[in-house]
Amino acid sequence: MISKNQLKLLRALGQKKQRKAQGLFLVQGEKNVLELANSDLKTKHIFATADFLAAYHDELNRFECLQATEDELTKVSTLVSNNAAIAVVEIPDTKVPKAEGVIIGLDGVCDPGNLGTIIRVADWYGIKHIVASRDCADPYNPKTISATMGSFGRVTVTQLDLPEYLEQSELPIYGAFLQGASVHKTSFSGQGILLMGSESHGIREAAAQFVTDKITIPLFGGAESLNVAMATGIILDNMRRQQAYSEA
Amino acid sequence: MISKNQLKLLRALGQKKQRKAQGLFLVQGEKNVLELANSDLKTKHIFATADFLAAYHDELNRFECLQATEDELTKVSTLVSNNAAIAVVEIPDTKVPKAEGVIIGLDGVCDPGNLGTIIRVADWYGIKHIVASRDCADPYNPKTISATMGSFGRVTVTQLDLPEYLEQSELPIYGAFLQGASVHKTSFSGQGILLMGSESHGIREAAAQFVTDKITIPLFGGAESLNVAMATGIILDNMRRQQAYSEA
Repeated sequence: MISKNQLKLLRALGQKKQRKAQGLFLVQGEKNVLELANSDLKTKHIFATADFLAAYHDELNRFECLQATEDELTKVSTLVSNNAAIAVVEIPDTKVPKAEGVIIGLDGVCDPGNLGTIIRVADWYGIKHIVASRDCADPYNPKTISATMGSFGRVTVTQLDLPEYLEQSELPIYGAFLQGASVHKTSFSGQGILLMGSESHGIREAAAQFVTDKITIPLFGGAESLNVAMATGIILDNMRRQQAYSEA
Repeated sequence: MISKNQLKLLRALGQKKQRKAQGLFLVQGEKNVLELANSDLKTKHIFATADFLAAYHDELNRFECLQATEDELTKVSTLVSNNAAIAVVEIPDTKVPKAEGVIIGLDGVCDPGNLGTIIRVADWYGIKHIVASRDCADPYNPKTISATMGSFGRVTVTQLDLPEYLEQSELPIYGAFLQGASVHKTSFSGQGILLMGSESHGIREAAAQFVTDKITIPLFGGAESLNVAMATGIILDNMRRQQAYSEA
């Protein structure tokens, strides 16, 4: 049973303003909630069905779990389906990441689904940190978290003044443009910032001025552009392939 | 002004059954409607705002265009925004593609957004044909068309008995699995079928039995899987990179 106050909190956390004020966000769906067991994130409560709590008793035993019906969970969920569990989690203090390895920089990527998909593919390629301009989608938007498919626990997203961050960085900055050197032929350093812009505006001048290497995904057909998450994944694959070979 | 009968037709075409019965589908949004001017698809009518018709008079002069208000268009649209134009287009007769070049095979990919994104990235890499199992998403679903960002006019999708198609094919069949040879080290033929399964079920046995080469995208981090459209894009990039180099 979800109390009136809890209900109010869960509903409030669908809104960015409330997430910020409370320092909390929602993690919804079976897979994402189970990821919390492997994560350093601080979970306040988990609301879940009796079946879910019984099936994952061992994984969940360190959490404060509250039983609820699927109907109750569906009412407070922002998702259409997959409502066996919802967790309330503290927004972590993210710091500006150390300048090492590969870091993804995002300029004005405002769709939460795209941001979540970028977090997921970053995690696939072992990227730990994303820095994002303040007008990017909220990393704690329920749609972002949902699209990460559990990767939200392994990749940090720090929102900051992106041009300022790029200006002080001593790493190479690879900026994805429609015109640039082919990623098939670029010699990537093992370290660097991969900078991606939004589909509608690309990398804006305030950030673009700090790019050291303009890169592009070669076009073989007729499409005018690629989705920003897709492009990020394809470029990361090219970066990691080179590293894997050069270390072998 | 959209007449009552036209209104009824436009609404009906949101449903698969009606699209099949009428042999028609909807193309919505400025970019997608403008793509019709460069396409062999047969357009019956275009409903658009006065502004849109004036701005693209030259591109649209061979079409039967009917003026409508944005309010009217929004009422019949299945999209939330971008409602300056809606076209009614004939579903083309797609044939089983000739066994040449690279063809994408999709087994049970039932999300229309994913199918549309696969069509878009296929077009980027110059792939002309997709064959899809009958339980894949409808290629003429408005969400599919919208996600193609105009590429629906350059890539054909043929729904067929996928195992039967694969059985008779003499091309190599590269199947994407979580366990397989690294796509970074696979020696791709210039021809072949790239077979992708759904995120939840992978490639099902009925189709998997005809795979000649099991391939995988190497994992460097913690994610358990990639979105099927993302994985398709990354593998196509690896296939085309090799071809570009081997021809150079």
